[in-house]
Amino acid sequence: MDKEYHITEEVITALQQIVSPSFVFSDVDVLKQYGSDHTEDLNFPPSVVVKPQTTVEVSEIMKLASEYRIPVVPIGARTGLSGGILAVHKGIGLSLERMNRIIAIDEKNFQIITQPGVITEVLQNEVTKAGLFYPVDPSSKGSCFIGGNIAENAGGARAVKYGVTKDYVLNLEVVLPNGAIIWTGANTLKNATGYNLTQLLVGSEGTLGVITQIVLKLLPQNRYNILMLVPFYQMTQAAEAVSAIFRAGIVPSALEFMERDAIDWTLQYNDFGDLGINDGIEAHLLIEVDGNYQEVLFAEAEKIVQVVEAYAIDEVLYADTEEQKNKLWKLRRNVAEAVKQNTVYKEEDTVVPRYELPVLLKGIKEIGKKYGFRSICYGHAGDGNLHVNIIKENMTDTDWKTNVPKGIREIFELTVHLKGTLSGEHGIGWVQKEYMDIAFNRLHLQLMQDIKKVFDLKNIMNPGKIFPQQ
Amino acid sequence: MDKEYHITEEVITALQQIVSPSFVFSDVDVLKQYGSDHTEDLNFPPSVVVKPQTTVEVSEIMKLASEYRIPVVPIGARTGLSGGILAVHKGIGLSLERMNRIIAIDEKNFQIITQPGVITEVLQNEVTKAGLFYPVDPSSKGSCFIGGNIAENAGGARAVKYGVTKDYVLNLEVVLPNGAIIWTGANTLKNATGYNLTQLLVGSEGTLGVITQIVLKLLPQNRYNILMLVPFYQMTQAAEAVSAIFRAGIVPSALEFMERDAIDWTLQYNDFGDLGINDGIEAHLLIEVDGNYQEVLFAEAEKIVQVVEAYAIDEVLYADTEEQKNKLWKLRRNVAEAVKQNTVYKEEDTVVPRYELPVLLKGIKEIGKKYGFRSICYGHAGDGNLHVNIIKENMTDTDWKTNVPKGIREIFELTVHLKGTLSGEHGIGWVQKEYMDIAFNRLHLQLMQDIKKVFDLKNIMNPGKIFPQQ
Repeated sequence: MDKEYHITEEVITALQQIVSPSFVFSDVDVLKQYGSDHTEDLNFPPSVVVKPQTTVEVSEIMKLASEYRIPVVPIGARTGLSGGILAVHKGIGLSLERMNRIIAIDEKNFQIITQPGVITEVLQNEVTKAGLFYPVDPSSKGSCFIGGNIAENAGGARAVKYGVTKDYVLNLEVVLPNGAIIWTGANTLKNATGYNLTQLLVGSEGTLGVITQIVLKLLPQNRYNILMLVPFYQMTQAAEAVSAIFRAGIVPSALEFMERDAIDWTLQYNDFGDLGINDGIEAHLLIEVDGNYQEVLFAEAEKIVQVVEAYAIDEVLYADTEEQKNKLWKLRRNVAEAVKQNTVYKEEDTVVPRYELPVLLKGIKEIGKKYGFRSICYGHAGDGNLHVNIIKENMTDTDWKTNVPKGIREIFELTVHLKGTLSGEHGIGWVQKEYMDIAFNRLHLQLMQDIKKVFDLKNIMNPGKIFPQQ
Repeated sequence: MDKEYHITEEVITALQQIVSPSFVFSDVDVLKQYGSDHTEDLNFPPSVVVKPQTTVEVSEIMKLASEYRIPVVPIGARTGLSGGILAVHKGIGLSLERMNRIIAIDEKNFQIITQPGVITEVLQNEVTKAGLFYPVDPSSKGSCFIGGNIAENAGGARAVKYGVTKDYVLNLEVVLPNGAIIWTGANTLKNATGYNLTQLLVGSEGTLGVITQIVLKLLPQNRYNILMLVPFYQMTQAAEAVSAIFRAGIVPSALEFMERDAIDWTLQYNDFGDLGINDGIEAHLLIEVDGNYQEVLFAEAEKIVQVVEAYAIDEVLYADTEEQKNKLWKLRRNVAEAVKQNTVYKEEDTVVPRYELPVLLKGIKEIGKKYGFRSICYGHAGDGNLHVNIIKENMTDTDWKTNVPKGIREIFELTVHLKGTLSGEHGIGWVQKEYMDIAFNRLHLQLMQDIKKVFDLKNIMNPGKIFPQQ
């Protein structure tokens, strides 16, 4: 495919006929706006932005794109962290923002049917109102779309107990690159009928088709939770405690790690008052347990305290009120933003079996020393999922461009050596694809690319993503 | 491909060189034995049975098969219910029974690495000894292999709370049809790195590759459970109660349905003593809750009783001892066998959203009446997964051959109409493939078949399964 596709007036007119002229945008400002997500400072504007409202409109757009071999990038809320929506080959930016309707909450079957453009937190709240529970809880839930969550197989803080997006997706309506519409599976909890195309689509980052309807399974609500913040004097001990909690038979509903720098950056740019963090503290664990029986939660919290007291810790802070809980969660959620708004950075989404976390953490710091960069680490330690923000600070541009990629490569080599992989929940998208050879050999990558070809022979569906050298 | 592949002496010699002559079998008796699983009375012997012990041997066998274009059928414990291992095109029967080693139980990361030929119950017991829990619990667990569970995405009684096989598979070592060896994913709880080939392999019924190593996630052990049997005067009320239990906020660890006939058949052919079942009882629910806190389980059991008491029920029977629990579970597990050993039958593995269960049940009985067959229904009602044993009894052979397939087609049309599908946990294999057009349109089936082609261009990997008209 050409490096860039230049769209013609003829195509613009055809798009206007499909969605009406009010929902086809060619202004430079709009294109620029739809050319960025939350990945570094990258901007790759599409040639045109289209905002369909129905599956049929999406299908018509794909038929047109297929006919003219125009690249199409499905666009959600643009909160992605791997550049999945960057229009690196120009073409059509297909925004799903108008497909923002919850179609039904099926209280009888514990399911929700929704369009992709619903904000995840809105979906969660509506489900809660119906007395049910959608537990997947990405940090960006206040702005990200459920469709994007599926495209990237989003995780978040509660994955440690409840799993990630993929564990809730029962069925997907997908518009294929040629415009055909299929449902990938059935609205059932079990399915052994043909290949699992549902799970093939989850995490496929918009490269196989456009997701236009989603059936998710829901759980009964949990009434109670307990949240505590544990300050550790040694960072690696905090990482070690993560496994110890599970080995004590507890499955917390969240188990988050933040190294000291992460908290300090966040406190510097937000007003959280004085948390009274002792000078020697190197890291914190934010731990939540949830359930329907308060006595059980008290017992579990007590057991957790017993476990962490075997390490060098400062006083455990309990969040007694909803307000305190919100504050602690806000602190955790703001880490990424605090770092990103105040320095040039690159974010890696490393993941390993959770017992290997201390080894990973130590390795990352050593690699940073070797290549001369500082990293701020935090993330979903219960899943072995550590976000590594490599910050530029006063590195020279040359060092940043030459040394950092080498360091990142070594970090990924370490994750794979530890039986982990490149990305736990952010996806590969545009910024990690050059590292894919670390996780997969040529044959394996070819297998994936050949699967893409089955769906997308003309390579119009979000081309240039996931696979290196495209 | 030819209807049948006839193997040459040259190939036999090459196989003997790979695994040694002691593990290559051509005797008619052995071939016949490896030509059947638990699907009806079907027998399709392979041309030769080979029993490799290592991944490298499997790889060598596949290279040979690929060179000579010989069909290869991976064979597990031959307990399958859809004919997945039937060598319908002859060729090599690749038995994984010698790859029966648990490689490691990783207590630190709550994972097990195992070869495919380990009996599921053996694996469960070893995991339990290590203080951990592998919850997937197919009825055939005492004889089936974990590799077969993955090939068919097996479910079982505890899927309602803990999910099915697919929910525990983190990573698979797979020998591809050309002999290449890949690991599909990583040993992590989260993974957003390329397409999810792990989940594509789960449930692919031996048609994409040979699974040679398996990494499963494990849970902490649950210490307690409560088991109860609830007799319902009306079958459809039993089915209705299933949803009502969930709507009361309870997620039981098992919720099994057995219609009266199922129990009567089982009692007739087993010695379970007198269960004191009242004459008017039409169906039973077998309900289990599990967890680490007995008080909680008592509270949940009480809540369940409150729910079921809204229906016409007889006295609830609690299993007070381990012996009683085993007896009730044995009763449930023996249903299939009791039916099958005593009549010609066909088994369907229908699945619908669980609230639709009463509609499905009613529909099945009506369809049976229309086509003149009796069915015995039981299964995992909590998942909406109903096994339908259609029994021949005194139907004529002509009626059996012409009317029953029409009835089955209508049953499947009903499941799909109810947003369900053909198979919940048994797979499509050989006996259900002619019904695939009910669940998928031509394009969708073609998509799946094209994915198969990506893995298996020469169509040697368990050919003739899943897809109609092959």
